[in-house]
Amino acid sequence: MSEKPGGDILIAEIFGPTIQGEGALIGLPTVFVRTGGCDYRCSWCDSLHAVSSAYRKDWVPMSSKAVWQKIRELSHGVPLTISLSGGNPAIQPFAQLIEQGHLEGYRFALETQGSIAKDWFKDLDTLVLSPKPPSSKMQSDWNAFDACLEAAGTNPDIVLKIVVFDERDYTYARHVASRYPQLPVYLQPGNHTPPPPGNDQAAIDVTGLNTRLDWLVAKVTSDQWFEARVLPQLHVMLWGNKRGV
Amino acid sequence: MSEKPGGDILIAEIFGPTIQGEGALIGLPTVFVRTGGCDYRCSWCDSLHAVSSAYRKDWVPMSSKAVWQKIRELSHGVPLTISLSGGNPAIQPFAQLIEQGHLEGYRFALETQGSIAKDWFKDLDTLVLSPKPPSSKMQSDWNAFDACLEAAGTNPDIVLKIVVFDERDYTYARHVASRYPQLPVYLQPGNHTPPPPGNDQAAIDVTGLNTRLDWLVAKVTSDQWFEARVLPQLHVMLWGNKRGV
Repeated sequence: MSEKPGGDILIAEIFGPTIQGEGALIGLPTVFVRTGGCDYRCSWCDSLHAVSSAYRKDWVPMSSKAVWQKIRELSHGVPLTISLSGGNPAIQPFAQLIEQGHLEGYRFALETQGSIAKDWFKDLDTLVLSPKPPSSKMQSDWNAFDACLEAAGTNPDIVLKIVVFDERDYTYARHVASRYPQLPVYLQPGNHTPPPPGNDQAAIDVTGLNTRLDWLVAKVTSDQWFEARVLPQLHVMLWGNKRGV
Repeated sequence: MSEKPGGDILIAEIFGPTIQGEGALIGLPTVFVRTGGCDYRCSWCDSLHAVSSAYRKDWVPMSSKAVWQKIRELSHGVPLTISLSGGNPAIQPFAQLIEQGHLEGYRFALETQGSIAKDWFKDLDTLVLSPKPPSSKMQSDWNAFDACLEAAGTNPDIVLKIVVFDERDYTYARHVASRYPQLPVYLQPGNHTPPPPGNDQAAIDVTGLNTRLDWLVAKVTSDQWFEARVLPQLHVMLWGNKRGV
């Protein structure tokens, strides 16, 4: 996808530092840059405020310099890990921000479904590829996914993170893992009570989430799938659907 | 400490596979080998059934071969990560078990306070050193701790895991981290409601635990201690103090 290298980044929210709640970098203090806009519409999207065009009015175009200033302010100029998420952050022009951050010792992790490749993937520290399972109602494009891997090359740590709601999703996750045996796999039980945009006080079904986690642990262990790591979303367990934490 | 290389291992419990609930290997399917006996008596010990001599009658001496058979049975012969914990598993003769497990592709992670060094530490895949903070009422012996690091050498991944209950513990954790800047640090909020031995249905104070986690996240982020990873004990959040899960 073409982009204007120095173009604005469409920002839904920038917040932190708080700990990363999920996946390979769980527990690590992180500033989150959530961008607006997505080429997917997952049925259970938990970030609709950064996806649905109904919320486009809340997204702010910011220059790389302005985003960088905000990150420096939040982190008091002390290097840390920055999570680039969305929406699909791969549709944004991040090359300049990453270059600037690296000059000052910051690290970058990108979270994307792997539908759009960018040449700046090779500059990331961590690339989290999160292909969407059948319950999302999306269709994985493996050519596009492979293009993401190729763009990233050998510099970033690359990991798979797959959300699992049910048996079909689990079968999909096994298929993806067998397709990419070189990539560490993180499985995450899906949240069937994602926040309605504009209401981050909405209740989540903690019991239901824990039941799904238990089920997923039982699946993985009874199948002797001992390389997969199973992790809940800590921030949801701790803080519900509240945004900005 | 001297040991009979082929001697029996004093076993409190062997269980799994289930996911590792804490620290660097969180989420990873694991078989747990918990040994009986400890040179420490931490005030808030959450595994008294493997520590207090009052429970010695429940510990079973098993040969390395018998322990290995049990692990193979639980994992159906499929290689996975084995957590050696206790008590202090460093007082047990583990050299043979590790050798046998490695022959079949298994991996070993040892959890110890770092008070007793063994030459088989060098054969581990992961060494989790968990020095005990002031709230434990134990005193760290840094000569012994350094001997553990020396025994392990450069082969295992070595990480620090420090339990934090309060400000003094947090200050201790910062001190330890600055003493060993090369080691990744995992901070874990302490459980002030550990299980009384023999009653694994005892209630835990989930709200109190979450409050302490929030406090710890706020400390780490406001101090810009961005290398530290803060992780709760997932198994306690999910399953309370229940044993064998």
